[in-house]
Order: sequence, then structure tokens, then C-alpha cells
Amino acid sequence: MPYELYYWDGIPGRGEFIRLALEEAGADYVDVARDSTAAMMKIINSRTEPHIPFAPPFLRDGEMIVSHVANILLYLGPKLGLAPKDERLRYAANGLQLTIADFLVQIHDTHHPISVSQYYEDQKDAARVRAAAFIAERLPKYLGYFERVLQQNPHGDTRMVGNGLSYVDLSLFHVIEGLRYAFPRAMQDYERQYPALDALHDAVGQRPNIKRYLASRRRLAFNESGIFRHYPELDTSD
Amino acid sequence: MPYELYYWDGIPGRGEFIRLALEEAGADYVDVARDSTAAMMKIINSRTEPHIPFAPPFLRDGEMIVSHVANILLYLGPKLGLAPKDERLRYAANGLQLTIADFLVQIHDTHHPISVSQYYEDQKDAARVRAAAFIAERLPKYLGYFERVLQQNPHGDTRMVGNGLSYVDLSLFHVIEGLRYAFPRAMQDYERQYPALDALHDAVGQRPNIKRYLASRRRLAFNESGIFRHYPELDTSD
Repeated sequence: MPYELYYWDGIPGRGEFIRLALEEAGADYVDVARDSTAAMMKIINSRTEPHIPFAPPFLRDGEMIVSHVANILLYLGPKLGLAPKDERLRYAANGLQLTIADFLVQIHDTHHPISVSQYYEDQKDAARVRAAAFIAERLPKYLGYFERVLQQNPHGDTRMVGNGLSYVDLSLFHVIEGLRYAFPRAMQDYERQYPALDALHDAVGQRPNIKRYLASRRRLAFNESGIFRHYPELDTSD
Repeated sequence: MPYELYYWDGIPGRGEFIRLALEEAGADYVDVARDSTAAMMKIINSRTEPHIPFAPPFLRDGEMIVSHVANILLYLGPKLGLAPKDERLRYAANGLQLTIADFLVQIHDTHHPISVSQYYEDQKDAARVRAAAFIAERLPKYLGYFERVLQQNPHGDTRMVGNGLSYVDLSLFHVIEGLRYAFPRAMQDYERQYPALDALHDAVGQRPNIKRYLASRRRLAFNESGIFRHYPELDTSD
């Protein structure tokens, strides 16, 4: 039975971290809500389901419903061959994925500092201040951290954890893609500052299954409804 | 060898979710940074450690370093007898803990919508707007979700997951405590709206080990340096 991924249609969003793992592994899956969100909303609004998710993305695997990106990848990683074999290293991978989750909140809130239920246009002034603080402080702090993790990996600086490709590597590929889309000016010099991260990004992008996926219609383009939005007025580089 | 918890001194903060689990289980642990943050900063700034945490809290158990609240509880839960015995339910517990983590970010950002490196006083206007949106939209959405999870638990509405006490129950106790401290007006009617959540809160607060801990000097009081801050101007109830 194929895995069922439930996520909003129209944006790569948080669903993308799950898609990249499923695609890299060549797993059999259905991206359920690409046609209609009815089945997804039925689960979310269910009054009988014992393990209701708070929000998409979530994964259904037979009777199991698993929600939250890091939790889904914790569950899928070993099944897809994308988690460290050493169980102790799986906590390191999970910790890194949770740092990525925190980073995504910071990235999202650059354009929505006040409320998710208001339009960007209605919180533009606060967004400018928040985005400037993000670019000056949070962006280098997070990227610098991920660069250090790569450089301090005892198995070599081509993997975030252990000596094999993991879902954390795939997720960081997508974060770099998104940041380059949203903040091209702020990111213009990133290769020089974060060489190991840049090399990881390029290596993931060259993997056959990832390349095939990125060129397919299953891959959704970044746009201004998602987490990574390109608003030139928020992309300051000084 | 005792567990070593590393977290900032002076606030309950995110470290509290780990403390509550260790205290309920009567585990042997050291709250390392209560005396000095030197040992904590040494690990965070290490240039050789293979699994550097991005930020506190983190836990050291012998050679293992585990970071992020949900990840630490995932690791400790089974050892402390505070996780479901059924492995599949552990993903449900982890998903709930991650929803609590997201909720905490929303709570924190009511007083820091613009930048963590600026004082509250310098982002007070944005904070008022964000807090009003939080109280009107996010607070009922999250509390309503947790109430539904309790009411739809096939093992009964006294536990968040499965039929035994878990770290998720302890964490929700602390969230309710914090919300009542920070937003007494917005929370004044919460018992009526969320009866199962209120009963869970009271039941956890009556557990002998928790009672003893709350009365001890190991428990830090809420204050205006933490996640849950009481600023009357942010606590609107209409």
C-alpha cells in the first residue's frame, strides 16, 4: 500500500521535506491533497479519529497517522534508508531536523511577523523590521551552525550526520534552495561563507532521483503563498 | 551516572519540560547551568564535539548529547516510564509534543514579534497587535485541539496519549500554568471551555513528586525574562 502524504496544494511548503525523502528513495506514495483537500480536511476535522493532526503535513501508513515534518521523517527515515543505522545517531538527526523546523518558523515570520490570518500587505512595516533582523542575526547564526555541524562531522564534511545520506541532507538542500529564491541579495555571497553547505546543496541537487523529481510536475515552484517568498523589499544585504 | 540537563538559569523556560519529566520519575539528574553557564557554553561553542546543539536545552547522558525538548523527551520518555509502551503511540506522543513546541513559539512571539535581540519595550506596539491576534485566534485553536485530543483518546479523556501518564501530560500542565500566569484575563474562563484539559492540569499538579518539586527551590518562578510573561497590556480578553 502506498504511503499517503497530506499537505496543502499549490506550494512546496513543509510537505516538500517529506516529498524529497520519498522521491530520493523511489518510494510508492500518493500526494493526496494535490487533487482535492476534502480527504485531508476530513481527517483533521474528524470527531472519532484517535490521533488527529493539528495541521498538515501528515502521513498515513496503513492505520498509522504521523504528523509534523520531523516526526514523519523520524518514522520514514529508517524505512527509506535515509536515517543513520546507529540508533544513537538518529537522535542527532532528529535534533538537526528540529533546528531546521525552528529556522523555517524564523523564515516564515519575516513576511508574517504579526498574524498568519492577515495579508502580508497589512503587516509590511513590521515585516521590514523583522526581515532586517533576520538577515543580520538569525540567517548567519543558523547557516553558520549547519556549516559547523558539517565541518565537525567525524565521518567527513559531506554529510550532516553519520557517513550516509540522510533526510537531514535532503532537507538542508531545500532550505538553501528556498533561501536563494527568497533572499537572493542576502544569499549572494553564501558559497564563500558556507563552503561545506554549498557543496552539500550541489551534491544533493545532482542525485539522479532528485534531479528527475525536480524536473517533474510533482515538484511545485516556490511562490508568494509559501514559506519562502521573494519580496525584494525584505531582501536587504547591508 | 546522573543525567545532565543544560539550560539557562533564572527562568523555567524550555528546560522546565525536561525537569518535570525527570522530577515525576524521581530520576537522578544535575541541572548543570544553575550554578554557572560555563560548562554549557563550552559544549555549544566546541570546535571538536561532533553533535553540537544549536541552543539549550540539551541533555547529556554519558557520551550522548540530545538537543531540543521534544527530542530529549523522546529519548528519556521510555527510560523514565513516561512514554507509551506501544511504539506506534510514541509517534503520536512526539507529534503532540511538537505541537506544544509550535504553540510555545506563538506564545513567546506575543512579546517578541520583531526580534529576539531587541527588548520588549522596543517592539511593544507590534507586540500588542500580535498578542491580540494570538488571543483571538491561536490560543483557542491550540487549546481546542488539545481538548479534542483528550476527548477522542480511546483510552479515556484523562491522558493525552494511551492509558498511562506520559511526558505530554506533564508538558501540558506546564503550558496551562504558564498561560494562566501570562494571560489571566484571556484564560479566566478556560475551565468551562476546556474541561478535560483543566482536569488534566489539576491531576498532574496533585501528583506527589510534582507537588514536592513545585514547592522546592529547584522550581523557578515565571518571570518577565521567560517564554510566559505577564504584561497586562498584552492580556486582552475581548
